[in-house]
Amino acid sequence: MSQNGNFNGAKTEMIRVGVIGYGYWGPNVVRNFFAVDHTRVDMICDMNPNALARAKKNYPGLEVTTDPDEILKSPKIDAVAVVTPVWTHYKLAKAALENGKHVFVEKPFTSTSEQAKELIELAARKNLKIMVDHTFLFTGAVRKIRELTESGALGDLYYYDSLRVNLGLFQHDVSVIWDLAPHDLSIMDHLIKGEPEAIVATGECHLNGVEDVAFMTIYFPNNVIAHINVNWLSPVKIRMTMIGGQKKMLVWNDLVADEKIRVYDKGVQITSGDKVRELLVNYRSGDMWAPQLEQVEALHAELEYFADCILNDKTPFNDGHAGLRVVRMLEAADRSIKKRGELVRL
Amino acid sequence: MSQNGNFNGAKTEMIRVGVIGYGYWGPNVVRNFFAVDHTRVDMICDMNPNALARAKKNYPGLEVTTDPDEILKSPKIDAVAVVTPVWTHYKLAKAALENGKHVFVEKPFTSTSEQAKELIELAARKNLKIMVDHTFLFTGAVRKIRELTESGALGDLYYYDSLRVNLGLFQHDVSVIWDLAPHDLSIMDHLIKGEPEAIVATGECHLNGVEDVAFMTIYFPNNVIAHINVNWLSPVKIRMTMIGGQKKMLVWNDLVADEKIRVYDKGVQITSGDKVRELLVNYRSGDMWAPQLEQVEALHAELEYFADCILNDKTPFNDGHAGLRVVRMLEAADRSIKKRGELVRL
Amino acid sequence: MSQNGNFNGAKTEMIRVGVIGYGYWGPNVVRNFFAVDHTRVDMICDMNPNALARAKKNYPGLEVTTDPDEILKSPKIDAVAVVTPVWTHYKLAKAALENGKHVFVEKPFTSTSEQAKELIELAARKNLKIMVDHTFLFTGAVRKIRELTESGALGDLYYYDSLRVNLGLFQHDVSVIWDLAPHDLSIMDHLIKGEPEAIVATGECHLNGVEDVAFMTIYFPNNVIAHINVNWLSPVKIRMTMIGGQKKMLVWNDLVADEKIRVYDKGVQITSGDKVRELLVNYRSGDMWAPQLEQVEALHAELEYFADCILNDKTPFNDGHAGLRVVRMLEAADRSIKKRGELVRL
Amino acid sequence: MSQNGNFNGAKTEMIRVGVIGYGYWGPNVVRNFFAVDHTRVDMICDMNPNALARAKKNYPGLEVTTDPDEILKSPKIDAVAVVTPVWTHYKLAKAALENGKHVFVEKPFTSTSEQAKELIELAARKNLKIMVDHTFLFTGAVRKIRELTESGALGDLYYYDSLRVNLGLFQHDVSVIWDLAPHDLSIMDHLIKGEPEAIVATGECHLNGVEDVAFMTIYFPNNVIAHINVNWLSPVKIRMTMIGGQKKMLVWNDLVADEKIRVYDKGVQITSGDKVRELLVNYRSGDMWAPQLEQVEALHAELEYFADCILNDKTPFNDGHAGLRVVRMLEAADRSIKKRGELVRL
Repeated sequence: MSQNGNFNGAKTEMIRVGVIGYGYWGPNVVRNFFAVDHTRVDMICDMNPNALARAKKNYPGLEVTTDPDEILKSPKIDAVAVVTPVWTHYKLAKAALENGKHVFVEKPFTSTSEQAKELIELAARKNLKIMVDHTFLFTGAVRKIRELTESGALGDLYYYDSLRVNLGLFQHDVSVIWDLAPHDLSIMDHLIKGEPEAIVATGECHLNGVEDVAFMTIYFPNNVIAHINVNWLSPVKIRMTMIGGQKKMLVWNDLVADEKIRVYDKGVQITSGDKVRELLVNYRSGDMWAPQLEQVEALHAELEYFADCILNDKTPFNDGHAGLRVVRMLEAADRSIKKRGELVRL
Repeated sequence: MSQNGNFNGAKTEMIRVGVIGYGYWGPNVVRNFFAVDHTRVDMICDMNPNALARAKKNYPGLEVTTDPDEILKSPKIDAVAVVTPVWTHYKLAKAALENGKHVFVEKPFTSTSEQAKELIELAARKNLKIMVDHTFLFTGAVRKIRELTESGALGDLYYYDSLRVNLGLFQHDVSVIWDLAPHDLSIMDHLIKGEPEAIVATGECHLNGVEDVAFMTIYFPNNVIAHINVNWLSPVKIRMTMIGGQKKMLVWNDLVADEKIRVYDKGVQITSGDKVRELLVNYRSGDMWAPQLEQVEALHAELEYFADCILNDKTPFNDGHAGLRVVRMLEAADRSIKKRGELVRL
Repeated sequence: MSQNGNFNGAKTEMIRVGVIGYGYWGPNVVRNFFAVDHTRVDMICDMNPNALARAKKNYPGLEVTTDPDEILKSPKIDAVAVVTPVWTHYKLAKAALENGKHVFVEKPFTSTSEQAKELIELAARKNLKIMVDHTFLFTGAVRKIRELTESGALGDLYYYDSLRVNLGLFQHDVSVIWDLAPHDLSIMDHLIKGEPEAIVATGECHLNGVEDVAFMTIYFPNNVIAHINVNWLSPVKIRMTMIGGQKKMLVWNDLVADEKIRVYDKGVQITSGDKVRELLVNYRSGDMWAPQLEQVEALHAELEYFADCILNDKTPFNDGHAGLRVVRMLEAADRSIKKRGELVRL
Repeated sequence: MSQNGNFNGAKTEMIRVGVIGYGYWGPNVVRNFFAVDHTRVDMICDMNPNALARAKKNYPGLEVTTDPDEILKSPKIDAVAVVTPVWTHYKLAKAALENGKHVFVEKPFTSTSEQAKELIELAARKNLKIMVDHTFLFTGAVRKIRELTESGALGDLYYYDSLRVNLGLFQHDVSVIWDLAPHDLSIMDHLIKGEPEAIVATGECHLNGVEDVAFMTIYFPNNVIAHINVNWLSPVKIRMTMIGGQKKMLVWNDLVADEKIRVYDKGVQITSGDKVRELLVNYRSGDMWAPQLEQVEALHAELEYFADCILNDKTPFNDGHAGLRVVRMLEAADRSIKKRGELVRL
């Protein structure tokens, strides 16, 4: 693409990607960039020689380096995937954008909302794309939930409540909130209409000085309330989200192979009783229904969309602004948790 | 007992109980007072004639009444079980104590901590027993968990996290916190050493003006943190408690028939790394173990203990003071939730 | 009823029942005969004095006896419930019928098909009802499954496959087949159109000389096949039945509290391919649906139906003939298992 | 290896593998042959050009072909993996052995026991290895179960009962028995001491003339009984095996992420009662325990073992003889099912 600068024959374009970071998630990014039609990986960078050796073994023909500049400044690279710890995102993404490369950044987008804003402006000025890797938005599960919320099938939303716990992985630089909550915050941002108003976060540090157990409440307009429970000290891995609406309610269990989403024809209605000011609560308890979900690998769908946004000059919905909204909520949670649950307005 | 006023032949004593309230829980109380060796029910009171008709059908020989005074003032009644809405507890329990009767009261003990204190003093003065129906403390599950925490098997406690959700039952006079959280608060009070320091509660009302979804964080000394998630708008019923300790962690799922408690030989340890100020996190992931639990009906065990406390003049551990401690936390939660998560010190 | 011999005022009739056998299941029968509108228990018989003492404690006003003749010959008893081991059914039911009493008999109906035939004839001659306690036919689950099979929702039936295993209870007189398989045989008989053609049974004895692990295959017309796996040596209790049809398939898990029945919009279709004699197999994999089930206690519904059949002179569908069909299959299974799986035609 | 014919420097040997068949399982075989230290893939063969294109995309440097002879006769190939339908195994494996290549063959080994015997003899004569891909034997689960049976922890074995059902995949040439039962037959063969004595198989064809639902009982000495339930028409995927022993019992659920194996301290013991010839059955119901399992990919471990057997001239336990034993049971099952459950002695 950069080689011929020609968008006309979009069908035959090939976006050449440099991937920085080949630890836990990087290999998935590389594999999928290879699998997607219009992208291929040209170079991989990692500080760890063992990681590079693994990369070499899996992809013999590939260039590898320990110096990110080889990717950031390479004229043949069209796009850079930043798959590194969050504190490095800003610097790497900035250099990539400055060198005219589109950027695909791991979540959370940046360490501060200031950094996020600067990157958004830079990309806009250079007419480059930023996509933040909110992978979950591309799962069959979230797509189905969004379809149910958008179509009004659930009715007015009451709550979003998510349990996302497991044993580790502890990270040195960030708390469990920055590690696990971005998933839910990006999903919430995608599903719930209206801007979040305020956040209350509580939690505790037991080991290395960052919160390893934390609970967030996010207030939305119209009495919609969200709650996120993240924990690095849980003996069992749980990924369960309950979403309650006026008409229907659903439970999303992401760890089961089948029937990840169960929609319940259950609800509560308030009617006026005979006596003055009496309220009657009526329950509706009907069938349960587990819709068939699309069986795509989410990261594959996301990287296809990344290619599509670049080749056809579209603005991704998981762009820098979406990344910024998540970072803002993380910052608010940090402020609240330090004051033991003080309400922080957004 | 009242018949001969003689405690010497304790083995042959029979405590005569009057039960006020024959709605959802009352029938269980009556059935178990019959089943326990040294108690029997002599009279049942309920305002609802249908409830009394049901009582008559199941226990043809029993006296029933719509007037609580017939029980409260009856000379043949030794003890009164108050199985009515919380706002009536104080008045009924007070009258029972004043008339020289021991009292078994539904949870939560009273509507205010002032009421609780008054009842405690009155009982002390009259040398009568108060037992608050914290039934869960008598389950095989909680007894096993207490055994594990007391013996040090779990190591230092990190967190107590409970999910207690279902569809309804909405109550007109109390929020979901007063309805569901007393279970967890009484269990916490039983298991965790040290007094709770402060509470943060958040939640939302969607239907009839009381919170139907709520989240509580309770701070304890030594970085122990408790969290309770209660919800009347959940399409599924969940009763799951996770308890994390330094040595072991456990998950208690109260709704499964077998293996309600799973103890995980999993943990995290912090060691110093090679470099200055480097901390290394080590995971331990071993076997899981589900101990066999006692198979008694909790309420039966509790009422046996009630009889034992009366006949042998023991102070129950679930006495008025235990009830008061729970009411104090409920009051604090109410204050916090009204101010959207403000920290309320206990 | 015996009091006035008058059927006109059916609403006010009361069938007086004598219950023989107050071991494991008897108390449930007694409790439900009390709960049903037109029945009441007048006498309970058991050989075991402890059982009678328990009966007395629960129902103070009731007559109890260790002599079945006191029930069988009592002029005030209208119907006898035989809740005893299978080898006693014939003798007790015969005496009851001879004394002009309707009979409710535990499953399996009798020890031999000859006995069953004799009782059927006797009841017909005396114009009395026999109901065999195939309780499962009255559960919300089986009623829903029957609705689905009758309505054609499942399409042509392919198979019925049931797993019914647990630890014990070993019985001295019968094998695991006679203990557990009657449930499935009666359900199969209720659901599958057409007479079973032949049975193959295999199994093994490990402890006391009767099979404790057994597997039955029952061939029906039109390639319908049924399979029953019963086991007294299973560490876990499982009650799972899969029913496959051409249009839909379902799984019935009787031990879960909710969503006992899951209907899958899944199937396989054979179409002709392009090449001669080529068959293509197409899969259909759609949504799953868990219908809301009736929440009645099955035994209560069954005993109400028993009263209805007596008072309104109806023939129960779970009559002696239904009981006989199950006994015939049990006999065939016994013959097959002794010859290690030999096909036994019915 | 073929390059220098030198076994001395075993550490630096590299076994060059040709893989025939790149459909469903072939890609896993190729990926793992790359990952194992002493093997690498040099050529892939498939009749389907789309499969070859996929292979090319994933492994750009690799030779691909539609002609198996290019692999079978290539002087640079040391070993051939036959990952094709069962009816082609004999011919391909024979040609590979005749050309001096070690063979890794998919299960089931061959279509007939005669073919299996011929290949075993040929390999012996040429001093080449045959390994049959009984992958499950290399899972952490089966290794742990074997440890438990070998150590005597389970006590004398009572039964092996396996449920292996799912929707499809229908195959044109083989029944559900040949498709799914080899897994259990190879595991049984690995775990149960003593030769199987006889087989009873029942089943039914509903779609394309081969059994799609089938049940096998396998009799072993000492009252050990095995049972296998395989079904291509099940709406849900289940992989559950129960193994009952005199001392302990276990349930292996292969589809859960954690705690695949649960060992129950449950059992039944027969003791003599007071009366002559009375037998008492005592139950033991204790804790449950889920041992931590090794987390290796089974196929990786198996291919490492394949390399080890070749380089160090060991005889694999999953050799041609193990493959033959499974094929003999499949043949017996076929004979039995055609005669509707006739006992076939082995």
